[in-house]
This record gives sequence, C-alpha cells and structure tokens, in this order.
Amino acid sequence: MVKTLIGVVGSGLEDPELDAIAFEVGALIAREGKVLVNGGLGGVMKASARGCKDKGGTTIGILPGLDPEEANPYIDIPIATGLGEMRNLIIVRAASVLIAIGGSYGTLSEIALALKTSKPVIGINTWDISPQIIKAAGPADAVKTALGIIGT
Amino acid sequence: MVKTLIGVVGSGLEDPELDAIAFEVGALIAREGKVLVNGGLGGVMKASARGCKDKGGTTIGILPGLDPEEANPYIDIPIATGLGEMRNLIIVRAASVLIAIGGSYGTLSEIALALKTSKPVIGINTWDISPQIIKAAGPADAVKTALGIIGT
Amino acid sequence: MVKTLIGVVGSGLEDPELDAIAFEVGALIAREGKVLVNGGLGGVMKASARGCKDKGGTTIGILPGLDPEEANPYIDIPIATGLGEMRNLIIVRAASVLIAIGGSYGTLSEIALALKTSKPVIGINTWDISPQIIKAAGPADAVKTALGIIGT
Amino acid sequence: MVKTLIGVVGSGLEDPELDAIAFEVGALIAREGKVLVNGGLGGVMKASARGCKDKGGTTIGILPGLDPEEANPYIDIPIATGLGEMRNLIIVRAASVLIAIGGSYGTLSEIALALKTSKPVIGINTWDISPQIIKAAGPADAVKTALGIIGT
Repeated sequence: MVKTLIGVVGSGLEDPELDAIAFEVGALIAREGKVLVNGGLGGVMKASARGCKDKGGTTIGILPGLDPEEANPYIDIPIATGLGEMRNLIIVRAASVLIAIGGSYGTLSEIALALKTSKPVIGINTWDISPQIIKAAGPADAVKTALGIIGT
Repeated sequence: MVKTLIGVVGSGLEDPELDAIAFEVGALIAREGKVLVNGGLGGVMKASARGCKDKGGTTIGILPGLDPEEANPYIDIPIATGLGEMRNLIIVRAASVLIAIGGSYGTLSEIALALKTSKPVIGINTWDISPQIIKAAGPADAVKTALGIIGT
Repeated sequence: MVKTLIGVVGSGLEDPELDAIAFEVGALIAREGKVLVNGGLGGVMKASARGCKDKGGTTIGILPGLDPEEANPYIDIPIATGLGEMRNLIIVRAASVLIAIGGSYGTLSEIALALKTSKPVIGINTWDISPQIIKAAGPADAVKTALGIIGT
Repeated sequence: MVKTLIGVVGSGLEDPELDAIAFEVGALIAREGKVLVNGGLGGVMKASARGCKDKGGTTIGILPGLDPEEANPYIDIPIATGLGEMRNLIIVRAASVLIAIGGSYGTLSEIALALKTSKPVIGINTWDISPQIIKAAGPADAVKTALGIIGT
C-alpha cells in the first residue's frame, strides 16, 4: 500500500511559537504512521521534521538546490531538485494534503498552487486568503482533519 | 540589445472590465516597444495579447500543456512547457516585471513567487496581500511604473 | 495562426565547421518564415541565432539561468527559466521538430527526450544512436525535411 | 547524517534478464543501508524496488504523473511530480550516483543529463555512448563501485 504523504509548509525563519506548533504537527504525523514531506530547510520545515523524527517517523525534504547536505538534520530523504522556488509545487503535488503554519510569500505560493489544483489546505495561523483553507485550532485539530481528508 | 519582457498575469476567465484593462495594458506595452509574456490562455491572458497585437507588438505565451494550439489566437510565440501550473514560475522568471490584473489562485501564486524572488509586481484590482505590490490606478499608470522599474 | 517553432540543438562550444552549418540552418529557418528556438547560449546556439537574425527571422532562447542578459546577442526573446539543464526539455517541448547539429551530452539529452516523447529529430553530424534520427546531408536538406514534417 | 540516495534507471518494460539484475542491485543497495531512488514505474524500476524491499530497504519513486497510486507496489515514498519525462532529471539530481541497467531513450536521457552535470554513472548492459560511463560486470560490481564513489 502506498504511503500517504502529508505536506507541512511554513516559514523558513525561526519563530519559537510557530516552531512549537510545527514540532507537534510533525510528531502527530509520525504517530499516525504517515510520512512528512516539506521543503527540507529551516524554521517550520526543520521543526516539523524534528517532531516527526522524535516519534520515529519518516521525513522527506524537497530541496530547492542541488546539494542534499543543504537539508536540515531531521530530514531522512533529501530530494535535491535544483528547481529553486519551483520546488514548492513539487511539495504541493507530492502531498495528499497540506498543513500550512504561519509563513511568508513562499508559503503563500504553496497555498495558492494547492488551491488552484484542488489540493486540500489546512491552515494554522497562516495566510487568510480563502474560505477554502480549512482553519485548524492547533496541531491535533490539523492532523485529525488531514487524516479525515485522506480517509484513514 | 536583449528585449525586455513584461509579464501580465490574471484570471483565465472572461471578465469584461478586467479584460478591457488587460487590453489597454497590452496595447501600451506594444507602444513602448516591449515584449509581452503571459500564460497564453484566456481571460486577461487573451485580452492583453489582443491589445498588444492591436498595436503591432510581440506576444509570448508560456503554456501549461504540450500543445501549442492551446494558445489563444493573439499569441505569436507559444512555448508549450507541459509543466501545468508550474509554468507560472517560468512566466515570473522570464519577465523583468509583472503586472497583475484581478485574478484568482493562479495569479496569487504568481504574485507570491514574484515577491519571494524579489521580482517587482504592479497590481491593478488584484490580490491585496502585501505592501510590496505597487498599486496602479490603471493601465497607463501600470505600464509607466513598469518602464520606470526596467529603467528605460 | 500559431507560429511554428523549429528547435536547433547542439554544442555550446565554438566549432567553426558546426557553427557554419548552424548559421545556415538559422538563415533557412528565417527565410521560411519560421521561428527558431534554442538554448540561447554559445556555439551552435549562437551561430544558428546569428544566421536567423541575418535573414530577419525571430529567435527564442530558453536559458538555463535566471539572467536574460546571459543570452547571446542574437536572441530576440530570452526566456530565463532557472531550470539548469532541465530547460533542455522545455526546448524539446516547445519545438515542433528538432534539428541537432553535432553536440555533446546536453544535445544527447535533448535527442533522447525528443525520441522518448515522439518529437521528430533531424540530425547533422550528431549522435548516431537511433535509426529514428532522420539524417540530413546539410542545412538545406535538414530545413526542407523539417518543413515536410511540420506540413507547410 | 543525510542518507545517500542511489539512483537506478532503466527500461520501464518487463525483461526477465534485466529485471533479475535490477532486483539484485536493489537488494544490495538495501543491504548496504542506502536508499534507492528511481522513476517508480515498471520494468527495471519495479524490479529494483522489489529487490530493495525484499531486504528491508527504503524506496523512493519520482513519478512522471500526478497520481501517487501510479507507483509500483514496492515504492515506499511516491513523489508525484506532474513533470512528465522532465522528472528524469529530478532522479539524476536527487541521486548521488546512478546505476543504469539496459534501457531505452528515457534511460539515455538520464545518462546524458548525468554526464552533462558530472554525476557518476555506472552501467550494466546499457547505452555504450561514453567512456565516462563506468562499466560494471554485474550487480555486485555495480553497487561496490557506487559505494566507492559515495565514499562509504
């Protein structure tokens, strides 16, 4: 059976509050036996991967550059794409559902591309640009909603 | 001397008001001797290309699919990419400056990717998601601002 | 009516003999009213664009980097993709037919991707790796064959 | 420590002899604790993934389409790219070294893109188009050579 990938997108900058949320989201994804895919760098990407590894989960980092060492230390599988910001759409396409946590323009591009291509987006403290973004109260609510969408 | 490309992004759906604006923007780009690049399909893409051709300009359509015939009839040069929505970032990268007119999630992805990669964005009745989007009062203002940015 | 693009692929290194062939191919494409698309850099790309401009034709350069100034001076329309060597497949997809002149591994990747996706390839002194490559005796033969394939 | 990905490329068509080689290559990659990345579909891609899973390894499939279910049943992590044949270069970029087994034009494009971007290629019964392809006598020789290149 194909493993379902849950995408976690958010800012690459450190932010204690958002990183704590991302850590918990990653941990819950691992506990549910799902695979985490993100952009493989810092901030929300690093914190969510750390949370996922903390519970023994699997983490995939879709990197903008060509060097797998660019991945944060909590990424199991670095996918070096060399696509720059275009790798954002690979994350959107690879994930069955996206959880957006905070974030700036890169995250906004991921949300927009997801909505454009009818990929479900769950948001925690993120861009409030569409009623199609399913607002979650916190990590547990977000992951529960994601599982409901995936149908498992 | 390399020709400067001005990108025009916006909804693919017909909208008389926005299409009239897009037509005028295209016409002004042609009058200034610049090349228009857009997504090659309908709505703002079609209207801006029609305006540009009306004044003898050159139009480039970066298409999501593999068939050049998919381009609207006002596209001189169809670039069939087969990238789907990922072609949005090719438009952003190819253009020296973007003019966004109205638009939905596809346009929002283009604006976000432009802001993320420090490409200037001029907006007419479009997503109001950042002070970095330079608001234009209308077609003349938008094209004048674009020329100012390009430095010609 | 959508303009048909003819792709010209070959080495980026200067080579007097191949460059003379590429110049003539570009000139003939212009004389037939077709648009030339290539990778926008040196060697065969530069020589074919120079030949095309010499006869008043239109040239499109699909660039690997992000800087349109990277294009050789005979490119009318630079499309900066930031895709690196992945831009090779954009050339293959955008062209209705490919003419391969000499070339090294980059050219080989273009030939292989063309054959894989059933895009016709005409070869002059190029990789002899498939009977599906239509061998041309020289520029006139190559462009004539290309026009026959396009059906005009 | 970042896991090293070994790419296995080859024909998507079933071929008992090549599939047996691919199975063994996949098994040896797993035994060495490396991760296998390939195109996720049939033939050599399926056989190598099956061999890798047989020894408890991890398999990544970089898919051309948008549907993760398109992956063969031995792929742990499907990465749906929607890039078509352009996904071949993602495989080349993600892998630290490529092992090519037989193969047709798709494989040839991967070999060419690897050589163009200085990614080492080890070949078993594959395209004989360059002395830069390191010929391997069989699966054990190929994986041993790959490990030597990776430096572990």
